[in-house]
Amino acid sequence: MRIAELSRRTAVPVPTIKYYVREGLVPRGELTSRNQATYDERHERRIRLVRALIDIGGLSIATTRDLLGQLDNPEASVDSLLGRTMLNLNPSRERVDDETRADAAARVQKLVHSRGWRIDAHDPTFDVLIDLVAAMRALGEDDLLEILDTYAEAAEKVAAIDLAVVSRRKDLESIIDGAVVGTVLGGSMLLALRRLAHIDASGRVFRPES
Amino acid sequence: MRIAELSRRTAVPVPTIKYYVREGLVPRGELTSRNQATYDERHERRIRLVRALIDIGGLSIATTRDLLGQLDNPEASVDSLLGRTMLNLNPSRERVDDETRADAAARVQKLVHSRGWRIDAHDPTFDVLIDLVAAMRALGEDDLLEILDTYAEAAEKVAAIDLAVVSRRKDLESIIDGAVVGTVLGGSMLLALRRLAHIDASGRVFRPES
Repeated sequence: MRIAELSRRTAVPVPTIKYYVREGLVPRGELTSRNQATYDERHERRIRLVRALIDIGGLSIATTRDLLGQLDNPEASVDSLLGRTMLNLNPSRERVDDETRADAAARVQKLVHSRGWRIDAHDPTFDVLIDLVAAMRALGEDDLLEILDTYAEAAEKVAAIDLAVVSRRKDLESIIDGAVVGTVLGGSMLLALRRLAHIDASGRVFRPES
Repeated sequence: MRIAELSRRTAVPVPTIKYYVREGLVPRGELTSRNQATYDERHERRIRLVRALIDIGGLSIATTRDLLGQLDNPEASVDSLLGRTMLNLNPSRERVDDETRADAAARVQKLVHSRGWRIDAHDPTFDVLIDLVAAMRALGEDDLLEILDTYAEAAEKVAAIDLAVVSRRKDLESIIDGAVVGTVLGGSMLLALRRLAHIDASGRVFRPES
């Protein structure tokens, strides 16, 4: 199909599609003449994915490109993709003193050990989690860290169902697609559900009469 | 204390502190002369909170200001604060047709009903969740929606421990502080733990021999 048809089907304006192609988010069409290219269902699918990641998942263009680069890399393993971050965090460790960070690191290691999780000690997610724990300590909100075990247990159940659903798929491409969509949109869903559960729970605690 | 001392204690440069004051993130100091103001522990605490929300929680200046505005509003109720969003989502419903959105809305209503959650039907979190479900459907990833019940159950347990920890605090100010920090940094923690659990689970599924 021509780019105009691709634009009609996806409801994404032609200049935006061209921008995605220039930025490497969507593969180029096949050239049929010097100035004309043709596109297929794979382009359509990719544009929908890009829109979902950016508009609904809240990812930046750069993060989306990194993530899709993994998708397009034939060497990408499913488990490295499933583990990839969409946290949009700016690591800024210099705010916290060495002792606070060491305490936070010990806390995170203990937690992971108690769950029996087998994870490369150099995985960057450790640093993200340690930064978060250290930030809570530095704010004097240590008592909030009591949530960690319950959070880890919840994360484990959530990860198990994610894997079960994605593993049921037959071909590698749709497994990888599912991993990306599930990680990004699923993460936002989990936070939205947590918010709804907060509203319900705080209503019961603070307005029990209603 | 003078602004220089405040800067030293928080490790935040003086121009940045002045910027936060201009942007309304940190209250003005008390004027002691025409060009000099004095600050106290509350300013120090607020600056630490602002840094944590922006640097670690990844919030924008605008979102942080909105959230802190709630904190400073004597009318703010604890339960409305606990429910407030930090999802950074751009609602963009026009991408999805009416039928897909109606289906998604029915799915979300059924889920909330099955959990027995008591939530105002006009709460904006409903729209966020409906958008996410609709986006998954539009991407043809309907099978991923099987995760929803497990996610909702996990969210409920997470919300219960959040409420239990914060409710143990004595004064309203520290309850509200805890709600803000717990919602923002706790949300990031939950996603980081989910990622670690994904790495562990996918390692077991896709590399069981290791």
